[in-house]
Amino acid sequence: MGTSILLAHGSGGGKTRELIRSVFRPFFTDSRLIAATDSAILDGAAGQLAFTTDAFVVDPIFFPGGDIGKLAICGTLNDLAVSGAKPLWMAVSFILEEGFELEDLTTIARSMAATANANNVALVAADTKVVPRGKGDKVFITTTGIGRLLTGLEQVSYGAGIRPGDKVIVSGTVGDHGASIFASRLEQPPATPVLSDCASVLPIMGGLCDLAEHIRFMRDPTRGGTATVLCEITEKQNWGIRLIERSIPVDGKVSGLCRLAGLDPLYLACEGRVICIASPEKGEEVIRRMKTCPAGLNACEIGTITSENPGRVVMETTIGGTRLITMLSGDPLPRIC
Amino acid sequence: MGTSILLAHGSGGGKTRELIRSVFRPFFTDSRLIAATDSAILDGAAGQLAFTTDAFVVDPIFFPGGDIGKLAICGTLNDLAVSGAKPLWMAVSFILEEGFELEDLTTIARSMAATANANNVALVAADTKVVPRGKGDKVFITTTGIGRLLTGLEQVSYGAGIRPGDKVIVSGTVGDHGASIFASRLEQPPATPVLSDCASVLPIMGGLCDLAEHIRFMRDPTRGGTATVLCEITEKQNWGIRLIERSIPVDGKVSGLCRLAGLDPLYLACEGRVICIASPEKGEEVIRRMKTCPAGLNACEIGTITSENPGRVVMETTIGGTRLITMLSGDPLPRIC
Repeated sequence: MGTSILLAHGSGGGKTRELIRSVFRPFFTDSRLIAATDSAILDGAAGQLAFTTDAFVVDPIFFPGGDIGKLAICGTLNDLAVSGAKPLWMAVSFILEEGFELEDLTTIARSMAATANANNVALVAADTKVVPRGKGDKVFITTTGIGRLLTGLEQVSYGAGIRPGDKVIVSGTVGDHGASIFASRLEQPPATPVLSDCASVLPIMGGLCDLAEHIRFMRDPTRGGTATVLCEITEKQNWGIRLIERSIPVDGKVSGLCRLAGLDPLYLACEGRVICIASPEKGEEVIRRMKTCPAGLNACEIGTITSENPGRVVMETTIGGTRLITMLSGDPLPRIC
Repeated sequence: MGTSILLAHGSGGGKTRELIRSVFRPFFTDSRLIAATDSAILDGAAGQLAFTTDAFVVDPIFFPGGDIGKLAICGTLNDLAVSGAKPLWMAVSFILEEGFELEDLTTIARSMAATANANNVALVAADTKVVPRGKGDKVFITTTGIGRLLTGLEQVSYGAGIRPGDKVIVSGTVGDHGASIFASRLEQPPATPVLSDCASVLPIMGGLCDLAEHIRFMRDPTRGGTATVLCEITEKQNWGIRLIERSIPVDGKVSGLCRLAGLDPLYLACEGRVICIASPEKGEEVIRRMKTCPAGLNACEIGTITSENPGRVVMETTIGGTRLITMLSGDPLPRIC
């Protein structure tokens, strides 16, 4: 069937079926998807559902530690997880550029299926469109997920219960994904690759469920990075956040790259981390549990909720000063995810 | 904030918020969307859910009878409707090209909201990404919908109950959308525009619910057109379809354009039609009810299920011959939806 994407692969006719059969079918094996009806039929869930969508346009599509397929699955299941939901079902839409290599698409499909399977998420619906050469860029993927909200975690994405004294915790080093993409785009990428943190946060979340009443807020710091998430949650509140710069975990290669390039790891995307705000009583326990997961080894407290500086995020810098942290403005790194 | 899309609008930081506030917020007003958490929280549904996703890359983005926004909402809600489900919630993802006019994006957002509201579908989750100039084409939209399966219509997308004698019905003229897009791309488009049939099929479906036991199959003939849908459903069955060419409703402007351009309306996409296979007893009643909807005025029987020619679609032509109808091969019209 040739080695690259043709416009006819997007026709909805015979060529589309050939593409599905040869590239997607070996990996996307859910019976609801194979039925190829217009919708997947799912067993409903009593209680509440979480529902989220994200487009992925990352460039390059392969990077150290992952690829656009793994990223697209993790991104959406992480959004469900930090909303306090167990991811159940996912729908995937591809926009392919004419001429895109089928071998690369196959690698991506394999990676998506492996990531979904490892996280017990069923890929139940899909769509493929093709645009002419120069009207897209290799492959864009939109993933949309449904999860079942877990009891006790219904409010965790709103942060309504945050109060002074609470601990601000991050599950690992910050900025790895952003730095990895940045390094991949250099004319001379570093000899030792900078690994993206691209991963599912479900193992980390799984260990925290029975601490639900002590977890005030969770979010994954993707676009905009840790700084933007903290600014968003603090905005218009009658409390503030005090960050301790020397407590913020940054990988050595990431900080080196950031110094060279004038980037700030606090604003670089993570794709496998969780920011968690927890009660002072159980903050240590949250960190201890995160550390039991491979992805949570570097979990630590990076700050506290304060009654001072309401609505603001202030960082105590390593050299002893203070710095007001504001939301990301401009876009230092387009197409990070 | 300028008049066109900047890369920074995709940063996830301040500019993204500005874009959301100024362009999307006036139209996308669902409280779950405005909460801007990572997932929308929905009240679960007992029973079964239908779940579907589609990317829309239509070119041009504005065409007679619709635009990419209306098409993206109708396309997904129609997929739910023909699966026998009542559409409830929808997630929307945008991939914008740097330089795309904000005025056009606003028009599209308005159109999406109006279409969703008119059909009682809540837009509850969204995402926006931006790609550099020349790496996309104005705007691509992926919509993903969830619906609640209606009792009695659970099997309607599988066509498992189809048997010889059943009536093949179409809810209106075929090929209008494909012809409209084709005409829009001509250097000299026709003086009288060829209107797309882009519309919700929910009003048509609503009238058929209590006939559920007589409805063996439903699908909307989008990419690949009527011919491809009929070939797909017939493949590997022990029955065939006999189509009557002179019974197939084709708009005069569409057939004129097709003759000139060497296109076949049977292979052109519809975006507001339903193919329905119904019992011989209630076939006439199905047509009568379709005709009570403005979009169903031209509903009619176009063929029957036969025990002859198993697995095949055979058309009795207007001049008295027979023609074997096969699935679309190649792609006469890329980026039709």
